[in-house]
Amino acid sequence: MDQAAGDGPEAEALRASIAASPFHTGLGLRIDAASRGTVELSMDVTSDRLNLQGSVHGGVLATLADTAMGLAVRTEVGPDRPHATVEMSIRYLRASRPGRIEATGHTQRVGSTLAFAEADVRDADGRSLARASGIYAVGTRDAQ
Amino acid sequence: MDQAAGDGPEAEALRASIAASPFHTGLGLRIDAASRGTVELSMDVTSDRLNLQGSVHGGVLATLADTAMGLAVRTEVGPDRPHATVEMSIRYLRASRPGRIEATGHTQRVGSTLAFAEADVRDADGRSLARASGIYAVGTRDAQ
Amino acid sequence: MDQAAGDGPEAEALRASIAASPFHTGLGLRIDAASRGTVELSMDVTSDRLNLQGSVHGGVLATLADTAMGLAVRTEVGPDRPHATVEMSIRYLRASRPGRIEATGHTQRVGSTLAFAEADVRDADGRSLARASGIYAVGTRDAQ
Amino acid sequence: MDQAAGDGPEAEALRASIAASPFHTGLGLRIDAASRGTVELSMDVTSDRLNLQGSVHGGVLATLADTAMGLAVRTEVGPDRPHATVEMSIRYLRASRPGRIEATGHTQRVGSTLAFAEADVRDADGRSLARASGIYAVGTRDAQ
Repeated sequence: MDQAAGDGPEAEALRASIAASPFHTGLGLRIDAASRGTVELSMDVTSDRLNLQGSVHGGVLATLADTAMGLAVRTEVGPDRPHATVEMSIRYLRASRPGRIEATGHTQRVGSTLAFAEADVRDADGRSLARASGIYAVGTRDAQ
Repeated sequence: MDQAAGDGPEAEALRASIAASPFHTGLGLRIDAASRGTVELSMDVTSDRLNLQGSVHGGVLATLADTAMGLAVRTEVGPDRPHATVEMSIRYLRASRPGRIEATGHTQRVGSTLAFAEADVRDADGRSLARASGIYAVGTRDAQ
Repeated sequence: MDQAAGDGPEAEALRASIAASPFHTGLGLRIDAASRGTVELSMDVTSDRLNLQGSVHGGVLATLADTAMGLAVRTEVGPDRPHATVEMSIRYLRASRPGRIEATGHTQRVGSTLAFAEADVRDADGRSLARASGIYAVGTRDAQ
Repeated sequence: MDQAAGDGPEAEALRASIAASPFHTGLGLRIDAASRGTVELSMDVTSDRLNLQGSVHGGVLATLADTAMGLAVRTEVGPDRPHATVEMSIRYLRASRPGRIEATGHTQRVGSTLAFAEADVRDADGRSLARASGIYAVGTRDAQ
């Protein structure tokens, strides 16, 4: 994939990690841009990811938001330090229809053991579908 | 699937809804038991649902928890009243490995416009992997 | 109190409501600025509002954040429509010491029955101490 | 205060800490029972702790819940290890009127750096007013 406008040096390694991950490729996740502390993702939500009422399943948007936040943390701590979600919360502002969905995750604070991030999930028209926040445990290079 | 021990009259309709949903069958979700206000789900997490560090992706557990809570709400409001996740939060107590994962969702309160639910996610040994809470908007039969 | 720089026409009514509320005056809450969808509060945290470890008690910051978000919702729905917190979550980025603390609440979306808001809590140096989000049930003028 | 029915050996030290804290005595917090991993608090909410609509201010219930959870963590880690709220979320199931309010906090898991707890807040009739969850950073005796 070509370098995107908002890319920093973190983007290439992040795209390689995602390309090697069956979970992320299975979702069809794309990294549209990545720089220190901020990651933009997108995916095309198909009709097999809807809830019983025909909207995009909340779990899909939660997965997208958690991934955008976790990768934003990863741009700061680097691939060698483990980072695991401790807590994630998401608020759904609007029902979502199938189609392109984007998420931007950014860090709020990265400390020595915990990192805080937030994410905004939008439809193709740029309307905010969901807002999320997450806390990530970050390890040391030596410890794990 | 045969009637399970903890089943109420709500279980059959719930299983039929899930069986007809590509999203839920794609995840391999099973309804192990369902009665008014409580739904027990399970799934076998395979190696294509792991995060970059080899644990079960948090989004998978969030999806499982959200589904268990949403279906628990559905056992109370019935299939004809729409119910959509307004907010979901999840706290991860332990890293999860591939294998069987279970979730129990139960309602805390179901009002005229909002329902509150909580979920516990466990591994096959019964250890709690995550705890979740959710708020669901419930509609009226006439309005939608 | 004089009109502040960021004030809209909503500010005066909001200050009058706060001035008449024993809870808000007891906390020493000030409305520094208010306009449609955004409210800035501040208070001076004294040493009788600390936790057992000498930091500002998390409940004080949670109260400040909830109030900033609820009042931001109020600037949109007006004083005649009831608005009650349905859910509030707060993440503490740094320990807080006694002194001036500020909070800005702003609405993300105000619908017919639910409003979504977020808040940032800062110390006198502008460092973010906490980030919060909230969901508010908003009523109709006639119904209540 | 006399030893209560549900008390463990942790209760006395906890009551002494609370009695020495201006914040906790200012709220009128009582420790009704405490044992390893569980703390029951109560307070009498007076009319100067109401929101603009005459219900108990959500920040008061959040403070009570956070305190019950934090003290439950303290019964496990001991008074010498610092414990600070990292995240707290609360869902309000019902509007609360002035009068006696109780909260029970209990730990879900206490790890080496993080502790997870939940709380239930009830009125004098035992009806659940709010449900809360919290994450606490716990330090080491040496480090701080």
